[in-house]
Amino acid sequence: MTASNLPAGSDTPDRVTREERRRRTEATILDAARELFAEQGFERATIRAVAARAHVDPALVMQYYGNKEGLFAASARWQVDHTRLAAASLADVPLTALEELFAAFEDPVMRDSAVALLRNCLTHESALGIMRDDVMCEPQAMIAKTIGGPDAELRAGLLGAAMIGTMIVRYLLEIPAVATASREDIERIMAPVLKTLVDPDT
Amino acid sequence: MTASNLPAGSDTPDRVTREERRRRTEATILDAARELFAEQGFERATIRAVAARAHVDPALVMQYYGNKEGLFAASARWQVDHTRLAAASLADVPLTALEELFAAFEDPVMRDSAVALLRNCLTHESALGIMRDDVMCEPQAMIAKTIGGPDAELRAGLLGAAMIGTMIVRYLLEIPAVATASREDIERIMAPVLKTLVDPDT
Repeated sequence: MTASNLPAGSDTPDRVTREERRRRTEATILDAARELFAEQGFERATIRAVAARAHVDPALVMQYYGNKEGLFAASARWQVDHTRLAAASLADVPLTALEELFAAFEDPVMRDSAVALLRNCLTHESALGIMRDDVMCEPQAMIAKTIGGPDAELRAGLLGAAMIGTMIVRYLLEIPAVATASREDIERIMAPVLKTLVDPDT
Repeated sequence: MTASNLPAGSDTPDRVTREERRRRTEATILDAARELFAEQGFERATIRAVAARAHVDPALVMQYYGNKEGLFAASARWQVDHTRLAAASLADVPLTALEELFAAFEDPVMRDSAVALLRNCLTHESALGIMRDDVMCEPQAMIAKTIGGPDAELRAGLLGAAMIGTMIVRYLLEIPAVATASREDIERIMAPVLKTLVDPDT
């Protein structure tokens, strides 16, 4: 039975409300999951703890996402728009790539997702897959194209390595000098250094 | 009763043999533990699997190391001699630091320990502690001293970040361009880049 078969004013408003309510509950669960996967890592975060933080029944989390793998897949996403990076000149690639990463890690919506992915990428197969394919290889291919020449892929890979290392040291290992520095100071120091990586003739 | 109280030739050779046997069993267990912590990570590696790989009873592993934490602490160590790094000139710091890290990750004895530490440093408290204090902060302080000036600590921290990122991308995430490159090609490309990080006036 579809909504159009129903008498007006009977089920329809109720159904909309129920859908809206489910949408909000899902968002609350995913926020709680992102926080816990970011703080504790996949293995130690439990469905029970996610449910408690979201103020829902654990059975509801299971009903929506099946299991912890499903919950992780739904919560830890990487959606970065590479339009600016694809259009950047060789000289602008390092700063643009740095700004893109910082934006993800300092955006209030993206941050937990980014940390959850990074936290788990060395010990969890699907986090590793997203980190390798979406975070590293996709922008790397664009950057290699801009670099050109025989070492292009390796130089683009090493650029990604230096940047992901900076995020790990700043947001996860929290090495004091790097964790307490301003984003602007890191960009001021790293952008010219990474310029010599993408263009050794500068 | 001490060995000197015993009649010559009774317990002494036996006791030496028993100690030697225990030493060998411990080494076998620690090798197996390093391999499994490196391959599977702390959470998924089990005492049972370590015992099976070492061909010993799980009870013996518990008797020697108490629990999985004790086994991890005994097996994942970081012992790098920084003599060359401490003596390096500013211009030589990047290549010396890179050579030191590559030596750890490509040495047949150190390798499993290094990968086990790196694999677990984002999700396991004591691995994070070793990574922060022994792998990062100790050489970072030396390098900052060689760099000098107002940004010394931050530049040394970013050098460490770029290098640890390279190891993660090469040995753990296995991003093709960086994982398949020769160590020499990475040193050739990264050393001059990192020189501009430690000495922006070059």
